[in-house]
Amino acid sequence: MKFTKMHGLGNDFAVVAEFSSVPERIAELAVAVCDRHFGAGADGLVLILPSNKADFQMRIFNADGTEPEQCGNAVRCVGKYVYDHGLTDRTEITVETGAGVQRLQLETRDGKVTRVTVDMGLPILQGLLIPTDVDAEQVVAAPLRVDGEEYRYTAVSMGNPHVVLFVDSLADVDLHGIGPKIETHERFPRKANVEFVQVHAQNEVTMHVWERGVGETLACGSGACAVGVAGVLEGRTSREVTVHLKGGDLLIRWDENDGRVYMTGPAVSVYDAVWNG
Amino acid sequence: MKFTKMHGLGNDFAVVAEFSSVPERIAELAVAVCDRHFGAGADGLVLILPSNKADFQMRIFNADGTEPEQCGNAVRCVGKYVYDHGLTDRTEITVETGAGVQRLQLETRDGKVTRVTVDMGLPILQGLLIPTDVDAEQVVAAPLRVDGEEYRYTAVSMGNPHVVLFVDSLADVDLHGIGPKIETHERFPRKANVEFVQVHAQNEVTMHVWERGVGETLACGSGACAVGVAGVLEGRTSREVTVHLKGGDLLIRWDENDGRVYMTGPAVSVYDAVWNG
Repeated sequence: MKFTKMHGLGNDFAVVAEFSSVPERIAELAVAVCDRHFGAGADGLVLILPSNKADFQMRIFNADGTEPEQCGNAVRCVGKYVYDHGLTDRTEITVETGAGVQRLQLETRDGKVTRVTVDMGLPILQGLLIPTDVDAEQVVAAPLRVDGEEYRYTAVSMGNPHVVLFVDSLADVDLHGIGPKIETHERFPRKANVEFVQVHAQNEVTMHVWERGVGETLACGSGACAVGVAGVLEGRTSREVTVHLKGGDLLIRWDENDGRVYMTGPAVSVYDAVWNG
Repeated sequence: MKFTKMHGLGNDFAVVAEFSSVPERIAELAVAVCDRHFGAGADGLVLILPSNKADFQMRIFNADGTEPEQCGNAVRCVGKYVYDHGLTDRTEITVETGAGVQRLQLETRDGKVTRVTVDMGLPILQGLLIPTDVDAEQVVAAPLRVDGEEYRYTAVSMGNPHVVLFVDSLADVDLHGIGPKIETHERFPRKANVEFVQVHAQNEVTMHVWERGVGETLACGSGACAVGVAGVLEGRTSREVTVHLKGGDLLIRWDENDGRVYMTGPAVSVYDAVWNG
């Protein structure tokens, strides 16, 4: 099996494009390939498959063999893979994912993709749909009591629930202490991804993320989108904002006209390989 | 740059054989290749180079860019690499390392190496040379007081200092609690690798290892050798013993005639790759 190791902001994938459908025992294969000592090592195994609805189909299998619907960092890698490997010569493509068909715009230099913009869709703002336990059209700068201390949060769903908290200084945030408490807070019936954000300027913020069921990660694309939306809702940032994450930068644009969120970020090819397993 | 990802008991390496000498900026290259999210991901970058003293020379650079003298798991991978890639057709070869020239014996099946036996040399048993603070010819089942509790240990150097403790049940050992306390105990002036061992039979033990400066690891070849020697010195095991480690099994033989320790274990090739960095 041929594969290419790629990453988006350090969120890394073994990308395989030689199958016409999901092979048998895919969960076992994902576990073996993703193992960081006995295998290639990756957060996920990404399959690029034919699609009836879009130019390509992406399926992603985590290191534990489970299949998430979507991953913004992975779909950018798919965009780079199909262009760099000559599977398309267009710079606007569509990719079918478990969360619907996504539109990608590819930026190229010397015939290779350097950055990819992904249409991440419409944010969901209604309190009960995100879901939170707040029955309101929006949940903006709402109070949240944790361990006797009061915080303010804005809730946004990008298909998955996010709780965004703006702070004066990230240095004062004990993410590993407070992150899991907010993640599992009773206000959030399906738990929540938690983003702490420090604003440097109207168009520049830094975010640290605690991912639901995972813990702190280098980068979370949907989290950065939620931060871009929450910044506008709280009047802290402009509609286009650079988000610094531990793994690198994402540019988030919440379009005033179509209401959709566009995420632009890098995709990197690390090596091309033949699996000996 | 072409490389092959290999592992010995989960101790994994990016192996490169295309250089005739150590390239400039090798530390930077090792850091980049070994990074588990932005690079290929490995414990070390291994270079196979020409040698004046042996069939091949091995140099190994850790994920932090430093260069250790030796690594039993890496040298097995070198043995497999040079045979499988046709750089030799002999099954007895010598490899120059920072710790001297090592003799390897290769076991093959279908033209590929499956296991490698490494001559790990003579154990050092004198207390002050290991080093411990005990001025004696051997340090066997000696008392050690840690946190008010008394343990018994045997000290062995395989080029690096080991403290071996036999216990009734590994389930009762809090390795992360006690390991660092023994590692840095005042009895061991250059610190020590710590092995807790449960004996199943005269020729079969399980060991958990706390590596000096690293912490718990899946496998430590020199530690398994020290365990084989300590088992004989304490009269608990025979001269040939299978050591179960978290990453897999090693067969250790302390030869009665030449006094040397022979370690036999697997070497696995995971993928062949071209680095895009």
